[in-house]
Amino acid sequence: MRTFKEYQQKLYAMRKNVYIDGELVGRDDPRLIGGQNIMAISFGAAKSENPELSSLASATSHLTGKKINRFAHVYQNEEDLLKKQQMIRKLGEKAGGCIQRCMGCDMINAIYVTTKEVDEVHGTEYHERFKKYLIWYQDNDLVGNGGQTDVKGDRSKRPSQQVDPDLYVHIVERRDDGIVVCGCKAHNTCAPYSDEILVVPTRALLKDSESDWAVSFAIPADAEGVTLVSRPVSPNPRKELKSPYNNYGVCDTMTIFDHVFVPWDRVFLCGEADFGGRMALAFANNHRFSYCGCKPAITDVFIGATALAAEYNGVGKAPHIADALADLMATAELVYAAGIAASVTSKKTSSGSWEPNFLYTNCGRYHAGVKIMHEYETLMSVAGGLPSTLPFEGDWLNPETRGYMEKYIMRNPDISSENQHRLFRFLDDFTVSAWCGMEMYAGIHGGGSPIMEKIGIRSNYPLDEKKQIVKNLAGISD
Amino acid sequence: MRTFKEYQQKLYAMRKNVYIDGELVGRDDPRLIGGQNIMAISFGAAKSENPELSSLASATSHLTGKKINRFAHVYQNEEDLLKKQQMIRKLGEKAGGCIQRCMGCDMINAIYVTTKEVDEVHGTEYHERFKKYLIWYQDNDLVGNGGQTDVKGDRSKRPSQQVDPDLYVHIVERRDDGIVVCGCKAHNTCAPYSDEILVVPTRALLKDSESDWAVSFAIPADAEGVTLVSRPVSPNPRKELKSPYNNYGVCDTMTIFDHVFVPWDRVFLCGEADFGGRMALAFANNHRFSYCGCKPAITDVFIGATALAAEYNGVGKAPHIADALADLMATAELVYAAGIAASVTSKKTSSGSWEPNFLYTNCGRYHAGVKIMHEYETLMSVAGGLPSTLPFEGDWLNPETRGYMEKYIMRNPDISSENQHRLFRFLDDFTVSAWCGMEMYAGIHGGGSPIMEKIGIRSNYPLDEKKQIVKNLAGISD
Amino acid sequence: MRTFKEYQQKLYAMRKNVYIDGELVGRDDPRLIGGQNIMAISFGAAKSENPELSSLASATSHLTGKKINRFAHVYQNEEDLLKKQQMIRKLGEKAGGCIQRCMGCDMINAIYVTTKEVDEVHGTEYHERFKKYLIWYQDNDLVGNGGQTDVKGDRSKRPSQQVDPDLYVHIVERRDDGIVVCGCKAHNTCAPYSDEILVVPTRALLKDSESDWAVSFAIPADAEGVTLVSRPVSPNPRKELKSPYNNYGVCDTMTIFDHVFVPWDRVFLCGEADFGGRMALAFANNHRFSYCGCKPAITDVFIGATALAAEYNGVGKAPHIADALADLMATAELVYAAGIAASVTSKKTSSGSWEPNFLYTNCGRYHAGVKIMHEYETLMSVAGGLPSTLPFEGDWLNPETRGYMEKYIMRNPDISSENQHRLFRFLDDFTVSAWCGMEMYAGIHGGGSPIMEKIGIRSNYPLDEKKQIVKNLAGISD
Amino acid sequence: MRTFKEYQQKLYAMRKNVYIDGELVGRDDPRLIGGQNIMAISFGAAKSENPELSSLASATSHLTGKKINRFAHVYQNEEDLLKKQQMIRKLGEKAGGCIQRCMGCDMINAIYVTTKEVDEVHGTEYHERFKKYLIWYQDNDLVGNGGQTDVKGDRSKRPSQQVDPDLYVHIVERRDDGIVVCGCKAHNTCAPYSDEILVVPTRALLKDSESDWAVSFAIPADAEGVTLVSRPVSPNPRKELKSPYNNYGVCDTMTIFDHVFVPWDRVFLCGEADFGGRMALAFANNHRFSYCGCKPAITDVFIGATALAAEYNGVGKAPHIADALADLMATAELVYAAGIAASVTSKKTSSGSWEPNFLYTNCGRYHAGVKIMHEYETLMSVAGGLPSTLPFEGDWLNPETRGYMEKYIMRNPDISSENQHRLFRFLDDFTVSAWCGMEMYAGIHGGGSPIMEKIGIRSNYPLDEKKQIVKNLAGISD
Repeated sequence: MRTFKEYQQKLYAMRKNVYIDGELVGRDDPRLIGGQNIMAISFGAAKSENPELSSLASATSHLTGKKINRFAHVYQNEEDLLKKQQMIRKLGEKAGGCIQRCMGCDMINAIYVTTKEVDEVHGTEYHERFKKYLIWYQDNDLVGNGGQTDVKGDRSKRPSQQVDPDLYVHIVERRDDGIVVCGCKAHNTCAPYSDEILVVPTRALLKDSESDWAVSFAIPADAEGVTLVSRPVSPNPRKELKSPYNNYGVCDTMTIFDHVFVPWDRVFLCGEADFGGRMALAFANNHRFSYCGCKPAITDVFIGATALAAEYNGVGKAPHIADALADLMATAELVYAAGIAASVTSKKTSSGSWEPNFLYTNCGRYHAGVKIMHEYETLMSVAGGLPSTLPFEGDWLNPETRGYMEKYIMRNPDISSENQHRLFRFLDDFTVSAWCGMEMYAGIHGGGSPIMEKIGIRSNYPLDEKKQIVKNLAGISD
Repeated sequence: MRTFKEYQQKLYAMRKNVYIDGELVGRDDPRLIGGQNIMAISFGAAKSENPELSSLASATSHLTGKKINRFAHVYQNEEDLLKKQQMIRKLGEKAGGCIQRCMGCDMINAIYVTTKEVDEVHGTEYHERFKKYLIWYQDNDLVGNGGQTDVKGDRSKRPSQQVDPDLYVHIVERRDDGIVVCGCKAHNTCAPYSDEILVVPTRALLKDSESDWAVSFAIPADAEGVTLVSRPVSPNPRKELKSPYNNYGVCDTMTIFDHVFVPWDRVFLCGEADFGGRMALAFANNHRFSYCGCKPAITDVFIGATALAAEYNGVGKAPHIADALADLMATAELVYAAGIAASVTSKKTSSGSWEPNFLYTNCGRYHAGVKIMHEYETLMSVAGGLPSTLPFEGDWLNPETRGYMEKYIMRNPDISSENQHRLFRFLDDFTVSAWCGMEMYAGIHGGGSPIMEKIGIRSNYPLDEKKQIVKNLAGISD
Repeated sequence: MRTFKEYQQKLYAMRKNVYIDGELVGRDDPRLIGGQNIMAISFGAAKSENPELSSLASATSHLTGKKINRFAHVYQNEEDLLKKQQMIRKLGEKAGGCIQRCMGCDMINAIYVTTKEVDEVHGTEYHERFKKYLIWYQDNDLVGNGGQTDVKGDRSKRPSQQVDPDLYVHIVERRDDGIVVCGCKAHNTCAPYSDEILVVPTRALLKDSESDWAVSFAIPADAEGVTLVSRPVSPNPRKELKSPYNNYGVCDTMTIFDHVFVPWDRVFLCGEADFGGRMALAFANNHRFSYCGCKPAITDVFIGATALAAEYNGVGKAPHIADALADLMATAELVYAAGIAASVTSKKTSSGSWEPNFLYTNCGRYHAGVKIMHEYETLMSVAGGLPSTLPFEGDWLNPETRGYMEKYIMRNPDISSENQHRLFRFLDDFTVSAWCGMEMYAGIHGGGSPIMEKIGIRSNYPLDEKKQIVKNLAGISD
Repeated sequence: MRTFKEYQQKLYAMRKNVYIDGELVGRDDPRLIGGQNIMAISFGAAKSENPELSSLASATSHLTGKKINRFAHVYQNEEDLLKKQQMIRKLGEKAGGCIQRCMGCDMINAIYVTTKEVDEVHGTEYHERFKKYLIWYQDNDLVGNGGQTDVKGDRSKRPSQQVDPDLYVHIVERRDDGIVVCGCKAHNTCAPYSDEILVVPTRALLKDSESDWAVSFAIPADAEGVTLVSRPVSPNPRKELKSPYNNYGVCDTMTIFDHVFVPWDRVFLCGEADFGGRMALAFANNHRFSYCGCKPAITDVFIGATALAAEYNGVGKAPHIADALADLMATAELVYAAGIAASVTSKKTSSGSWEPNFLYTNCGRYHAGVKIMHEYETLMSVAGGLPSTLPFEGDWLNPETRGYMEKYIMRNPDISSENQHRLFRFLDDFTVSAWCGMEMYAGIHGGGSPIMEKIGIRSNYPLDEKKQIVKNLAGISD
């Protein structure tokens, strides 16, 4: 397993293909460090001296028997699923949000399962090919970016109906040595500091005539023809009042494929339209499962922040605060319970690896999605207006105003002026920033918005059985 | 294990101590049959020829090794908890609601666990005493009524502060051969057709000075001094359009103890105020766990009914219906997931039996409680006004009006007039009746209302850990 | 203006054409008295010795200059609209719910306005004809039933597409002396104790080919060919514990027209399909305006009941109760504010009468509809389970159990046992009864369910202006 | 009336007492221009050549008979209140949010009314004093900042209980020529570009012993001892893609009074503790009334933005979009209806000016406050993730990436790439920025958070009348 430093060294040697706000930048650009610092958490945890943490964050490869980072592992049993969920919550609490590296983890699990099924039907050899790739991926402790969501163009039209076929990533040429693809995957959270880009289709259904859009592959993030137009965002920068949260960041990215050549040993689906949806949903399922671990971590931050805000305001014991906290707790634990249920009712697939229960992963992600804005509302209501009107840090540093700042931020006299400042500065970052806006959108749409989970929930639900229950009770026979 | 007939024979031989609307009645009063028919489901399932069903509904006693009804079983492992939950959902779907017999089941589990703990601290012998009682209870396949909720008098006062000490059940005399108790347990769902009344305290905390209120015991439902004032309710009676749902009923009851003598071998807590709360919460925990199985069953009825209503109205495929159904499904499955999580994270107690995870049972019951009225709203919205304005059954039987009825109820032409009638007649029962009112209150308050679960959720929640997460992120040290 | 007695005398002399549960009954059937008692409120108020009340409940006819019941009045100015709203809230508070007589009031206002507009376009003479009818209606202080909602058959089909054309009321024959109609109007709240049935179309749009369904008329409620199949419902009957609420009732009715002849002087729309929707929406608008008065009255009952339940339970001062009450108050007053806004922004129509603002009547009714189940939830949560498990009245009358009842219902010691009993008995009626089920459906669907108001709200909303606001801000020109 | 240029000239001549992020700046600092541009809207509207607009935005002073800006006007009748509400909605739509100048308007109305009442009880002369001040304020067309909310220290303590008495603004010295005050008013939206600071108390109740905190006055914003520590915020800056919205801004400010001398002719309350609450609530009432105009304007932006986002995504006609829009419309119009109701039920005060109905202003502001986060959720859900992941503007300007940007932003092919860019860039500003965070907090807390309006709603509500309604229905006499 790599150290964080080794990870960065490899990154910094990559071809420059990242654009930020009009500039072509190296991967050592300061705006890209925040996201790398999130990755550092996962590298550190796997090698942690705390055995509980390291055993959560690492696993034993079923392919090589070597110790690997759990984010590179393919689930071999229920326990693996439960541990993944625990790991994500634990690391997410450290990050105060998305741990980012599950993208790659969810991709390899989805591709692993689906390639086997494709082979069984089509006599292809994707699964062995992917296994080889995966051994290399595990051995090198790589970070993978998940490229799923196409830019999609006109939402009322299918891939093949768009005025521009590139609005969904597709195969433009099949060659002896590989394929050539065009298109753009959007909302790629960690592309500029990932080693690899893994790609699967977006749609839950592809028609036979849409086989060019049935494509899955992996490609180095700096491969020829790949351009990453990235939008880094971090909590507000600090002058002197440093805090861990402000070291983090995220870089949502448009990953553009402009006639990118992919050699066959990196192609994992190529035209089998009947499996496009299966692969898309397999990733969605795994990714929604991840949310059952990371969303509770985020709610943990809401719980802690709401409790501290109330305490610092001097109303920590008020009944309406206790009520608000209990509702947040219920949100965290219901989502987490859905993840546990998805784990213990998971199924072994033909590939030998395990897949979480699609119904529960969708229910968990759904609940997280419908509650997230309410969680912000709760925290904002309890915090009062200060996070949004707190004078900038410079006014704490300027001796002419510092005294006023310290005097007038005082609330609960048991809490020092500095800690009051630290908390409300954190709340400013957490709730009044472009960073917060990104987190809100991620909370609603990341991994699929509630409207998508509703589709997931009802897709295989035994509705006829439920109707029959009522027919039985009502004496209806038909 | 008994047959339903044997159960009824024993019932009908009991002392007459049930009052309904001013009348002293036998247990064969027709108004008491609906509840007995619910019990029939549990007797039948345990002896079912369907092996899947019978294995769900029966278990092997850890005390005698005999095959017993699962409702008389004490959990020996996680699997027992999962099976209990599955059983309740399955049987609840048959009943179209509360299966009622989990009252006794949850009582014996709570008393089993707590008596051991009391003995460990106080050197008492309650646990062995209760084991003997339990063997007899299992061998005779008994139905137990759970007496927990006291009438409570002034809600702003504690038991010992009430103007009348009987407002909470308490010990009025300690004798050589037993104790004498006074008071009244309210909202007892199945008392008039139970064999036994099991009693535990209500409050989560009893003070040392309130040791007279720290009392647990079992007593035959027709014991001297016990009076049951009962309020039977059933779906609306039918003239000719019979259906299974209309055979069912429930009989909420005030179980009054007027100087009832309880011999020592039936006393399981007697003055150990420090364990009053533990026993109360042990029952609450087990009972909220039951709700994680039965509430999904009730939601299953909402799902089926909503889907059928839409289909019969001709709008089964409308997008807003699909949306409404998915939300109901998410409700059912999140509550169920909480039950699964409560099972697989359950803990072995010092008695050797297993206890579901209190946090998840509370989260599951909480979610059910906050959603129930929304479920009614969904069904009522989709059904349209007809369930509440449907002419009475007599107008279908009267030849002068029957033609009008059949003509004007027609909606989706694929559904016969009779089935349209049956569905909307069922919806009338399910949503426009005293029975429905009872179900709504049960949905909100049964097993503890959401406000109680909020207390449960936050009672042991690691709030300080969550605060520390935020302090770490914000750089606050104190 | 008539007395209540005169109203009843006329009713009791009508032809027997009311069916209840298979029986053909006279209008003096006890099951029909509850609704008549509601009507008594409106007759009494208009002749009240309280000048404030009588001036609210009566008006001066613009046609005859005579003093008439306000329910027979056509709005002549904003003040009339405001007074109507005040009247309905005041009388609704007396009834504890729907005052029922606004049906007729809203019908005459809708027909008055629309007939003038039809005449202007089609050169017909409906308006003068209706004026004559209205003078007679006012002079005789009549009660009108509003027949709007057709049974509608398959909801996915239009009137002309149904397998049975009668599923919407339509003209089956045009004769020299009048027309013949067939069909059935559903959910008619007060048909069996109304003098007249007034009919307008249901749909917001009729196609040219659907002119037979574009029909409006008035007919005596006992006319030949009219059959009323009625479903009376009342609060639970009382033995001795009489209270005003239990005198009331409602009788939702299917009003069946089986080849009913309507003479021309009672026909107000006959084939002008282009005005079918206008007339339907004119009634909907007026009726939703009524809801802006009556729904706050119902919320007033929720407020009072919730406050009393808390007080009687001993927790009247608890902060969560104060919070719950404030939310109920906001619901009442926002709906009422929408009615005020609809009044003061009303428009004079070509007929000279005034029409409330459609946008605000829809907003008011919408808010009432989306909140009603939450209001029940609030009251039920605060009341605790007792309303649903309260022993029947007979157990209070039986001396063997009376003592127990009085002893164990005690809560707040400042409240007598009788008053505790009265309150929870009322809550039983109000929330645990077929009557309550009817009220819930009325709360959701009466006057149009929220989904209908959403259509109303957006139908004329200046959406393009709102888009332009954003285009201006964003610098978009197109 | 002044021009915007005259307003700015006066501003720029003021003493430098504004701090931003550690710097002492002049009022011509670029970060302060955004807020001034908002003020420009009000200056421009009053002098607009559009007579409808200018008549909304100006009024005739009842003191001088001169034409004045409506924001300097004291309500003389219902019409004035209605026009104020219309004006704010209209101007708020231009600003895309808070018009800011109502602060001063609401202050002068509150002080005008209250000073009269104080004089009546205490024989003081505040009212005549304030009239003189007001004539000067109107004649000079001034902009007033409302200083109400104290920093408040420990929320569980009263002003006099704080460890530092300055945590609420108070009188520290009474001199012959005036008073000296200390303290800090927080969340002052427009202080750095206001001419005057107007101050009233915060608390709804002051005790007799807290007369030093019963203080109201006006002072130039650059008076000696006044320090403004300001936090300017604007939509994200643009490089080339200019749009009106990006010219705006707001500057929440801590207005610090460090031994500020206020001459008597500017003191409007000085120690009359019994009127501290009256004045505080009079401002709250007027300010919540303003929200009944401005919040609908903000919802208008949500409506337009949601509709455009759906249209640009190609799903403008989808039923769930229509539904979401109707709900937003209902929110806007219910809040607006509350403002209309507050206007037409306003009361003339002893000063001769009119005061909106406190119940309805609270209901309107309450509804806005409980819906605001849901409005964001609606827009964010419909917009999809793009606003939060849209590459920065520089990538549109860089020729190496511009083609990709234009290609891959395409959605509905009827909308140009530039307009797609403009819309989603606006949505980025509106929902993913520090500016948005400020708007969210303003939406929840500005003018008082929902918890404060609940207190307002229930404070004078006739709860006993509502209880009596239920007692009447239930037959309870006491």
